[in-house]
Amino acid sequence: MTSQFKSELAAIAAIINELLEKDDYPNIIQPEYLRDAVRAYPCQGGKRLRPALLVWSCGLFGGSIEQAYNAAAAVEIYHNWTLVHDDIIDNDKVRRGAPTSHCFLGDEGAGRFGLKGDEAKKFGRDFAILAGDIQQGWAMNMLLKSLEVGVDSEVVVALSRLLQELVNRELISGEAVDVELPVRERGDISSAVVLEMVRRKTGVLLRYCAVAGAAIALQETNFIDPRIASIGRFAEAAGVAFQLRDDWLGVFGDFDKFGKTIGSDLTERKPTLLLLETYNRLSPSKKDELESLLGLPEYSIDQIERVRSLMQDSGAEKIVREMADFHVDEAVRILRRFPESTYSSLLDDFLGYLVNRAL
Amino acid sequence: MTSQFKSELAAIAAIINELLEKDDYPNIIQPEYLRDAVRAYPCQGGKRLRPALLVWSCGLFGGSIEQAYNAAAAVEIYHNWTLVHDDIIDNDKVRRGAPTSHCFLGDEGAGRFGLKGDEAKKFGRDFAILAGDIQQGWAMNMLLKSLEVGVDSEVVVALSRLLQELVNRELISGEAVDVELPVRERGDISSAVVLEMVRRKTGVLLRYCAVAGAAIALQETNFIDPRIASIGRFAEAAGVAFQLRDDWLGVFGDFDKFGKTIGSDLTERKPTLLLLETYNRLSPSKKDELESLLGLPEYSIDQIERVRSLMQDSGAEKIVREMADFHVDEAVRILRRFPESTYSSLLDDFLGYLVNRAL
Repeated sequence: MTSQFKSELAAIAAIINELLEKDDYPNIIQPEYLRDAVRAYPCQGGKRLRPALLVWSCGLFGGSIEQAYNAAAAVEIYHNWTLVHDDIIDNDKVRRGAPTSHCFLGDEGAGRFGLKGDEAKKFGRDFAILAGDIQQGWAMNMLLKSLEVGVDSEVVVALSRLLQELVNRELISGEAVDVELPVRERGDISSAVVLEMVRRKTGVLLRYCAVAGAAIALQETNFIDPRIASIGRFAEAAGVAFQLRDDWLGVFGDFDKFGKTIGSDLTERKPTLLLLETYNRLSPSKKDELESLLGLPEYSIDQIERVRSLMQDSGAEKIVREMADFHVDEAVRILRRFPESTYSSLLDDFLGYLVNRAL
Repeated sequence: MTSQFKSELAAIAAIINELLEKDDYPNIIQPEYLRDAVRAYPCQGGKRLRPALLVWSCGLFGGSIEQAYNAAAAVEIYHNWTLVHDDIIDNDKVRRGAPTSHCFLGDEGAGRFGLKGDEAKKFGRDFAILAGDIQQGWAMNMLLKSLEVGVDSEVVVALSRLLQELVNRELISGEAVDVELPVRERGDISSAVVLEMVRRKTGVLLRYCAVAGAAIALQETNFIDPRIASIGRFAEAAGVAFQLRDDWLGVFGDFDKFGKTIGSDLTERKPTLLLLETYNRLSPSKKDELESLLGLPEYSIDQIERVRSLMQDSGAEKIVREMADFHVDEAVRILRRFPESTYSSLLDDFLGYLVNRAL
């Protein structure tokens, strides 16, 4: 990570934080604790990588980046509403060191109205559904306000449509398939289905960021424009590479460095491409061995080593690593076609940051 | 209900049904049964009163009503996504004679993956959250496509913003307060809070319909325009009157005619304005008597008569009836200011239909 990347990312984070903090959309939400929940995830921070991608993509095409700030804040809110609903679905308790939305709201129900046990849980879940619903509207509203910072109204309409057509139905379909995978027979799941799920769940919102930044710079409503389409492919490839590498790190990461996260996918029997490719290549007896190594509450280094051997000896580990590299190479190749500039180098750092670690 | 109202409503329903049926937004949703759930509520029908209000309001202002069809289909999808999430929250099993979204999806989880009991329920709930999330995006997309039928891009942006600023956060806040009311101390709830909840939950979407129709006719982005604002007030008043009268009918409706629905609000201890106004006016001993008459699994005519007496003798019934009449009168007064036309008479019928029965 270059120091320029670090400082530019911090600068964008500060702008987005202020824009979200000052925006009055949540103000009239009732009750007050629902308003707090609507603001919580978007305003709590996070690295603001999606806004940075959008703004730098605008810069790459020579746009005035101030015109991209509203859209950049919008994708951040958008990402966060999906997290609120995902956290309900995944029963997650903690996000960014604070209680998840449904847990916070369940506690409010308990504290304010004396609700107990399942009643408090249901109250928290119901309110978190509504919080995410409002956030989806807030994201749209923030995007539509791009008109006020000089984005042409036809571009605003086109970007709003693209958010529905490219992101909403595809991203949520990705989430749905991800919910479905663990209840399916492992042997029936093809790699293509998993890759498509990864593309939809992680890739399309990044693609949108890059396309939106470029379209704002060019004041263009035709997203098939080859320049716009290519930067979109760059971002999607980066997202898919990130996810494949993240799955790989979940088993092959440094045991000392990543500590507890190593093995957590195995604990959850998460049907990653890595696991499926391995499973499908093993003999029946090795399948049984792999099965016996899944779902353990925690993993010793020896157990992890055994899983690693099964994945490597089957050839699956190599395949998945190569697939991630393929996507990284594609992203690099696309970026090289653009003339060198501050923004091309920031996007290059962005890619490096993504595929070496953590969205 | 005039025969013209009946035939015009049927004509609009046919147009909306076709538009929804043919729209390709849901086509790429995965898995297939999620796609089915996304289409189910919007395509299953319903009376299409909101689209009619939008189209007739466009006609009232001399607009070409074809330009309003996309927005009309959009409000119908919008209404339906809120129903999908409400049905999860209310644990409802049946809507329009078919299983609710979360029940249908839970059955899919059971049938396809052998999920049982709570697992199938959670699966159904998770997928129904996602179905509603996609429908919110579908509604936006349908509205944005108004550009294709000749609505000016600045009007499209303004209408899209209004859907977020007037409807999304207000309607969902209304739903949230409605979820909260039953867990609050009855004596602490003021009538103003309940009226505001009714306005938000029922009134604002109807206001939006009328405003959107007018704005499309006038190609206007300034919704404070007094003509636009007044038709908005007409629709909101009609919505509030409808809800107050519906609550009244829930106790005072014809016992033979409405059968089972009489008393169901009492079974649920639903904190309607009628119940709260009564409760706050009763002596402690009569409060106890009312309390003993709430939450019964079903009601005999004698029990209903006893509740009616408490409501009437306390003066609450008269207050609520007068409040409903006040809103009806306001709506009528606004409508009379418009020159007589086919559309003013359809909107007059619309009001009559609404306040005599059922949205």
